[in-house]
Amino acid sequence: MIKNAVVGQSGGPTAAINATLAGVIENCLKSQNIGTLYGAVHGIDGLLKENLINLNDIFEDKSNIELLKVTPSSYLGSCRYRLKEEQIDDVFSVFKKYNIGYFFYIGGNDSMDTVAKLSQKAEEYGVKVIGVPKTIDNDLYGTDHCPGFGSASKYIATSVMEVTRDCTCYDLNSVTIIEIMGRNAGWLTAASALARCNGNTTPDLIYLPERPFIIDNFINDVKKKIDEKHSIVVAISEGIRDEKGNYISEQSAAFKDDSFGHGQLGGAGKTLEEIIKNTLHCKARSIEINLLQRCAAHMLSATDINLSVDIGNAAVDAATDGKSCVMMAYRHKSAAPFETDIIAAPIAGIANAENKVPDEYISKDGNDITDKFIEYAKPLIQGEVATPMSDGLPLHLIRK
Amino acid sequence: MIKNAVVGQSGGPTAAINATLAGVIENCLKSQNIGTLYGAVHGIDGLLKENLINLNDIFEDKSNIELLKVTPSSYLGSCRYRLKEEQIDDVFSVFKKYNIGYFFYIGGNDSMDTVAKLSQKAEEYGVKVIGVPKTIDNDLYGTDHCPGFGSASKYIATSVMEVTRDCTCYDLNSVTIIEIMGRNAGWLTAASALARCNGNTTPDLIYLPERPFIIDNFINDVKKKIDEKHSIVVAISEGIRDEKGNYISEQSAAFKDDSFGHGQLGGAGKTLEEIIKNTLHCKARSIEINLLQRCAAHMLSATDINLSVDIGNAAVDAATDGKSCVMMAYRHKSAAPFETDIIAAPIAGIANAENKVPDEYISKDGNDITDKFIEYAKPLIQGEVATPMSDGLPLHLIRK
Repeated sequence: MIKNAVVGQSGGPTAAINATLAGVIENCLKSQNIGTLYGAVHGIDGLLKENLINLNDIFEDKSNIELLKVTPSSYLGSCRYRLKEEQIDDVFSVFKKYNIGYFFYIGGNDSMDTVAKLSQKAEEYGVKVIGVPKTIDNDLYGTDHCPGFGSASKYIATSVMEVTRDCTCYDLNSVTIIEIMGRNAGWLTAASALARCNGNTTPDLIYLPERPFIIDNFINDVKKKIDEKHSIVVAISEGIRDEKGNYISEQSAAFKDDSFGHGQLGGAGKTLEEIIKNTLHCKARSIEINLLQRCAAHMLSATDINLSVDIGNAAVDAATDGKSCVMMAYRHKSAAPFETDIIAAPIAGIANAENKVPDEYISKDGNDITDKFIEYAKPLIQGEVATPMSDGLPLHLIRK
Repeated sequence: MIKNAVVGQSGGPTAAINATLAGVIENCLKSQNIGTLYGAVHGIDGLLKENLINLNDIFEDKSNIELLKVTPSSYLGSCRYRLKEEQIDDVFSVFKKYNIGYFFYIGGNDSMDTVAKLSQKAEEYGVKVIGVPKTIDNDLYGTDHCPGFGSASKYIATSVMEVTRDCTCYDLNSVTIIEIMGRNAGWLTAASALARCNGNTTPDLIYLPERPFIIDNFINDVKKKIDEKHSIVVAISEGIRDEKGNYISEQSAAFKDDSFGHGQLGGAGKTLEEIIKNTLHCKARSIEINLLQRCAAHMLSATDINLSVDIGNAAVDAATDGKSCVMMAYRHKSAAPFETDIIAAPIAGIANAENKVPDEYISKDGNDITDKFIEYAKPLIQGEVATPMSDGLPLHLIRK
């Protein structure tokens, strides 16, 4: 008897996680081995509640697949939910009820933990369990990059270039601090260095959470740079920490008022902005790119989106070929010209491991990245995706 | 004897101020009545220091003009400088030295004040003095819209749509507050309402500085909305103030530490985020779009950019036709189809007046805008401009 499939999305959304979903849908709909494809609304949490929708119906219209590829965030809805050991059988009960033979879970670290847990009993229940990576943070272990990272990098680098035009237009000393996502891994902050092209020379300094952030060194670095070129742009990770491991953003936790319970009013950027104003007495401004960096579907990398679709497609091929208990992963073969394979890697050892920016990508002084990082990241931002527009604004596929 | 011309840019830059400069350059270069076109580097401040560059040389290559149209910020450099009465003659001395017969000043309120001051002696010195408006704030008096407002509005509405996809993907109550530029005039915040199209329904609430911001009313408004649809998006102006006229952002001035001298750690959005967390006990997040909204040249409105070039062109026509002591302005003739004239309005009465969002554009409860505003603003975001890209990132024209 032909089996059905279910796909879910989980964790923080990205601008590319729907492209991967589109790849899964595209391939399931044309597969002779898969009956109905269900979507789990709000990931594993929704699956446990049997909150399932029939994706064959919605995506019969192929134009919906194309629109899905350029719609940011998780079309199916997401969750932040770590499956408990005692819920594993509950999941398989739902699978049994819906005659599920294939489960695709698109997500980051927590989601791969779910995939690993289900993998324990996947064979027993006869279900192929496949993890598909996504995270702008690029910190998933076992894959040479993560879908979503390229598009976020392209948006960040573009924004750094544009902010540089803006912030350097006055005839005065100024320091602009751009705070970029990444609590533990500095991949996205490193990607700001891609902005050093087409005649642009910023960021002037780059600080990742992989190195301790010494405030005195920072002030000296900034002083040296503004002596050279008066208006500078600095990129920092939200997760930078001092020698003792305390977040720089928590330096502002002192400004706490019990009536509102403010724990953390300013981020790392805001804290450093104040420090620069009060030590170097020059104009300082901090900009937190915030959520925009992970949902800016109007500035996608074609390379990232195409590879995100491909990995979704490959997940379905792997499952119908009999693979299970794996995470789909990229293996880069060559940087120039850029070539990558997609493989199915055993899930064991992947979940819960964190892939930080390696030493060879960080400069000796810890205030910049190396050319090796540029060589790694540049291919991932190449190519543009035309945003479908109507009435002057983007079109998105929105779940009813 | 044929006279030369000088053009300057002033005030906060926008994504369209260079399109206007391109219009001025384009027309000056082809005019038989104008010799050399100089650029005043850093506006009137640079002009007083004779910091002038020859624009005929740079823009002989016409591809530079096209690239200038899509380069954000002030190519010539900007200043925030209010000309003093006693400096008026100094400016005309520089004009005399360089045989200047035409002065074009592209800027906002302060710049129009400079134009008004120079206008007092323009006839005496035989110089045609022309102001050309720009400001994303859209608050210049005397013109039906300001160049730059349309592109900033398009970027804001797009970002609101994208952030909405992102913030509504979880199955929980959440409030996302988007803080938008505008200290006194709420035009840009109102423009967030343009996002209510293509199936998107947010923002759910909109607060402009034109109305006093009552925190209790805000909490009630939010409570009502999350009861209806659990995940909501709220747009606020950075300049919202309480009944007494105190900025909401200053509510956080309590968190002041003398050692760093933090005056204002959090903006209005951050303050309201904390208030929501502590009163409604649900997920809350604030996003400050910050500088990105005024420099995002990768998301320009074709209508805005074309009209920005046109008004630069028209400024040169007006000057060579003998007009002086004027600000170029748009007079909208029709909303659908959108049609506008460009006129030369007497500078007297324009400078230092502020054009706020009129009552008919704000809802009765003060927590939304009206359809009349949509009718006004929608034409200004229509059409896209292809961003010239190289190596995966935008190309800008950068002054050497």
